[in-house]
Amino acid sequence: MQNFIFENPTKIIFGQGQIKRIGQEAARFGKKVLLVYGQGSIKKNGVYDQVMTSLAESNLSVVEFLGVRSNPVLSHAVEGIKAAKREGVEVILAVGGGSVIDTAKTIAAGVMADHDVWDLFTYKKTIQAALPVLTVVTISASASEMNAAAVITREEGHQKFSIRSPHIQPKVSILDPTVLFTLDRAYSAYSAVDAVTHMLEGYFNNTEPNPSPLQDGLVEGLMKTIMGATETILQHPEDYDARANMMWAATLAFNGLTTAGMGQVALPVHMIEHSLSALYDVAHGAGLSIILPGWMKSQLPSKAGRFAKLAREVFGVAGENDEEAALAGIDRLKRWFSLIGSPISLREAGIPGQDIEKIAENAFVLAQVWGLKAYPKETITEILELCN
Amino acid sequence: MQNFIFENPTKIIFGQGQIKRIGQEAARFGKKVLLVYGQGSIKKNGVYDQVMTSLAESNLSVVEFLGVRSNPVLSHAVEGIKAAKREGVEVILAVGGGSVIDTAKTIAAGVMADHDVWDLFTYKKTIQAALPVLTVVTISASASEMNAAAVITREEGHQKFSIRSPHIQPKVSILDPTVLFTLDRAYSAYSAVDAVTHMLEGYFNNTEPNPSPLQDGLVEGLMKTIMGATETILQHPEDYDARANMMWAATLAFNGLTTAGMGQVALPVHMIEHSLSALYDVAHGAGLSIILPGWMKSQLPSKAGRFAKLAREVFGVAGENDEEAALAGIDRLKRWFSLIGSPISLREAGIPGQDIEKIAENAFVLAQVWGLKAYPKETITEILELCN
Repeated sequence: MQNFIFENPTKIIFGQGQIKRIGQEAARFGKKVLLVYGQGSIKKNGVYDQVMTSLAESNLSVVEFLGVRSNPVLSHAVEGIKAAKREGVEVILAVGGGSVIDTAKTIAAGVMADHDVWDLFTYKKTIQAALPVLTVVTISASASEMNAAAVITREEGHQKFSIRSPHIQPKVSILDPTVLFTLDRAYSAYSAVDAVTHMLEGYFNNTEPNPSPLQDGLVEGLMKTIMGATETILQHPEDYDARANMMWAATLAFNGLTTAGMGQVALPVHMIEHSLSALYDVAHGAGLSIILPGWMKSQLPSKAGRFAKLAREVFGVAGENDEEAALAGIDRLKRWFSLIGSPISLREAGIPGQDIEKIAENAFVLAQVWGLKAYPKETITEILELCN
Repeated sequence: MQNFIFENPTKIIFGQGQIKRIGQEAARFGKKVLLVYGQGSIKKNGVYDQVMTSLAESNLSVVEFLGVRSNPVLSHAVEGIKAAKREGVEVILAVGGGSVIDTAKTIAAGVMADHDVWDLFTYKKTIQAALPVLTVVTISASASEMNAAAVITREEGHQKFSIRSPHIQPKVSILDPTVLFTLDRAYSAYSAVDAVTHMLEGYFNNTEPNPSPLQDGLVEGLMKTIMGATETILQHPEDYDARANMMWAATLAFNGLTTAGMGQVALPVHMIEHSLSALYDVAHGAGLSIILPGWMKSQLPSKAGRFAKLAREVFGVAGENDEEAALAGIDRLKRWFSLIGSPISLREAGIPGQDIEKIAENAFVLAQVWGLKAYPKETITEILELCN
């Protein structure tokens, strides 16, 4: 196990009927709230009304900032920063999934910065302060409700980049699994792919100096939980326990717990997927299920042991030979992605093979920003060929 | 899954060579430190010198308060409160295991209370404030370094009671696995028993309305980690990875993670064990390995399914019949306790069977304080008979 620092102060309020607490929680941080949300689904499922009632009961004034879309864009976040400054809000409240929360985090940091907020994403500047962020989660996948990261796409250059700072870590997040009852099949599946991939990028990294059984055990347990819950959800979208297990597991999958002790975890699958989202507006989870199996095939020579462990522990693959077990595991993972309805090839997502060069060029820009030296453009191209 | 609130802000600094950071961390909270420790083992293993050097480098002044023993007592904590008040310390730094940390927490709360500190343990008063507590861990078992609880024994009446408050939750805890290299075989084993029992009291409770696979998976993964690591440690006390896995797993075993969503988790095994420690000064882990199997036998009619799941998932017990699997699991657990050298009967610990009535009377006092209505004196007596 490698040295690490683990600090995750977000207060999680979990369960049905808990959204009504958001007012009193937000009131601890200020009187004027910027309410950030997306395309209006929260008005259909009743969450908007619950939140507004609770904020009113705590005598908070509310400025609404809506219209966040999936793969949220910089220009919209910049509008939010302007609105927050103009209105003098003291608290940022995100009601939505990862896209909404990440936009809220970007606004929270941008309000306190006296420079172009994009400089934070290119690591030219670091976040020195941010307004307090709270969240009410409506899609579970990103774990953004309990971590210090945010991802935004700058339209110019199609750059999907990220920031990370304790200042933007949510103070309080409310997770009510009943909110997920109306989440459609596709996004229920993509959420599972996202959560699983978050963990696996760490799991496959758990090698130096020795794989720690502790993190392996956490990941395997959470992954089996997510897989089982998702299969139930696709049959019974209103199964409370399945939604609850998925919701909490997705948070734990990327809140720092499963990677603590694994050293610096690279996220090459996320890195390449960001280009699919940036260029084709593919849903993040759908992009991940396209890239992950191809990336695994490309890493087989060095990571057969890790892939074999996954195959044996999670998919029940038998057999002594690591390479055979690894290949069987990749196959089982692809079949599971297909089973839940997430694409497993560029072709399936309607992305033409002749675009691979262009995608690789886009991804290589992020590889440089993230310092992933093992991913020159040629390597990314080879991986994408395996995803075709 | 039941509704829950999870909030655990302790900053964990984990790994070899990290104790040197304690000065700069403590300096964030004040200039004058009460250094709480035990019987002086930290002077033999070099931890004391590392801590003092780091505190000096951060220009902190230090008041030493030593002499904490296992099963720490109220009178000693009261001395510590007096010393802290007299010296006007601003920070409490515990360097030790659960006993030292719990004494430090009691001092931190006691300094800020204008009444008898014991009133906090009998729940007559609640903790309104506390000095900041930091820890450097030298025995991993209690998870007190990352939770809000403390346990103290009042000599008068042999009462081993507890407090719980976010105010006494450590701000920062440093965990260096190399510190455990000199921990002897007995305490290495008792630590494992303690950590495992913390989790199992929750795991056996994971039934309402449906057992959540998420928490089951976490507990099973951590338990297998602790068992494997302990077996390695007893053979190779200086195996870094085994010590590291045990150290972090013990913290995660009782920091609120594995029980979040399980509702109010009763701790009847701890409750009865507290009487063994209070009356006979038995090491806490040793007491737990005596009580746990007997308690399990007493609960067989209602919890066979849970015990069977443990047996199958952790001990690889086969067979369809829950009751048979449960009994086999209890047997395997006892054999594992024996294997690592922890006692599995009152007799083995030198506690006479004719004392059972007296132990039950003592435990019943705590059962009432903790509100464990299912544990009248007769029931506790029956359980103790099964531990004889």
